[in-house]
Amino acid sequence: MTPEAPPPMTRRGRRPASEDTRSLIAEAARAEFAEKGYDATTLRAVARIAGVDAALVHHYFEGKADLFAQAVVLTRVDPRVIIAGVLDGPRETLGERIVRAFLTVWDDPGNSERLVAMLRAAQTNDDVAEVLRRVLVEDIVGQVTRRTGVSDARLRGGMAASQMVGMATARYLLRLPPVVTASHDDLARWIGPTLQRYLVDPA
Amino acid sequence: MTPEAPPPMTRRGRRPASEDTRSLIAEAARAEFAEKGYDATTLRAVARIAGVDAALVHHYFEGKADLFAQAVVLTRVDPRVIIAGVLDGPRETLGERIVRAFLTVWDDPGNSERLVAMLRAAQTNDDVAEVLRRVLVEDIVGQVTRRTGVSDARLRGGMAASQMVGMATARYLLRLPPVVTASHDDLARWIGPTLQRYLVDPA
Repeated sequence: MTPEAPPPMTRRGRRPASEDTRSLIAEAARAEFAEKGYDATTLRAVARIAGVDAALVHHYFEGKADLFAQAVVLTRVDPRVIIAGVLDGPRETLGERIVRAFLTVWDDPGNSERLVAMLRAAQTNDDVAEVLRRVLVEDIVGQVTRRTGVSDARLRGGMAASQMVGMATARYLLRLPPVVTASHDDLARWIGPTLQRYLVDPA
Repeated sequence: MTPEAPPPMTRRGRRPASEDTRSLIAEAARAEFAEKGYDATTLRAVARIAGVDAALVHHYFEGKADLFAQAVVLTRVDPRVIIAGVLDGPRETLGERIVRAFLTVWDDPGNSERLVAMLRAAQTNDDVAEVLRRVLVEDIVGQVTRRTGVSDARLRGGMAASQMVGMATARYLLRLPPVVTASHDDLARWIGPTLQRYLVDPA
């Protein structure tokens, strides 16, 4: 075991050890999930590749689903940051901006494989589903309804999440032809007003 | 053993043998898919259980995905019949009627397990996805836009399919809390107007 771990909070010069250790674990997780897939990856193997004690993985991550989400998916895409950027603009076009931001992230080849892997894993694994539920309900639609201040925020957020999940599933998993070939403009024009009605407009 | 079952190939005065054979295969498929799951089921095993030659399975069904869809899922739920029923009513509330019909079918315990199995399999298996794409695009949304006669029918149908897939995925696979607990009235009130705009309203 290295002297850097578990994470001391005080150090001079370099990145704090805690961040080094967390990065090591995350890097090992990315390699292992990519090679083995979600189901066959174990936290024990990730710890071994990272060269750390397995207990440290549990110190930094809540479990396999959280490690997968934090290290593999959300490391490139932070929905809270994206939504914060989207909220910065006129209220009347918020729905369209959400659609465009969503498509920009998902159509980026550097992200799409990881996002699709997460969405697919969430449909068969309840731990991954729980992480996705939290991200969708709190970090994405919850962040929007807290700003727009609509009544019925929880139900509206669910409706918006259903349309966003549906757009992702139709475009990236089921590959429904008219949704796959639709341009960002088409999708913003059709789905933007739907999100606007769910998340912004008065009832 | 009742005189009705199981259907022998040669008999007089009853259903034609072809329908008996198809039913035998379908029944064997339901048992095998239920026991083994989609991936582990083979057409050869289904033929053996049905007591027919494997070539006959290919005569009645296009392949495993088609057998799964026709024998396991669509045997209880025929989307063309359901949509035909839904189309029979006032144009202004068509979106709401689609949502209610959809929920009635999916919330029925006799259907939901099979429908969820199909939706889940479609996300990992492209043959099943192809069957689902055809059902969604042609039998469901295509049937509606042919009646409503909107322009941009293909794109609109895709948008509607994305919202329907999203409602199903959020409620039955991801189990997003606000969508799981929403009543049929809530879902019809929020998602009905979305489908109305996608499938019925002028652009």
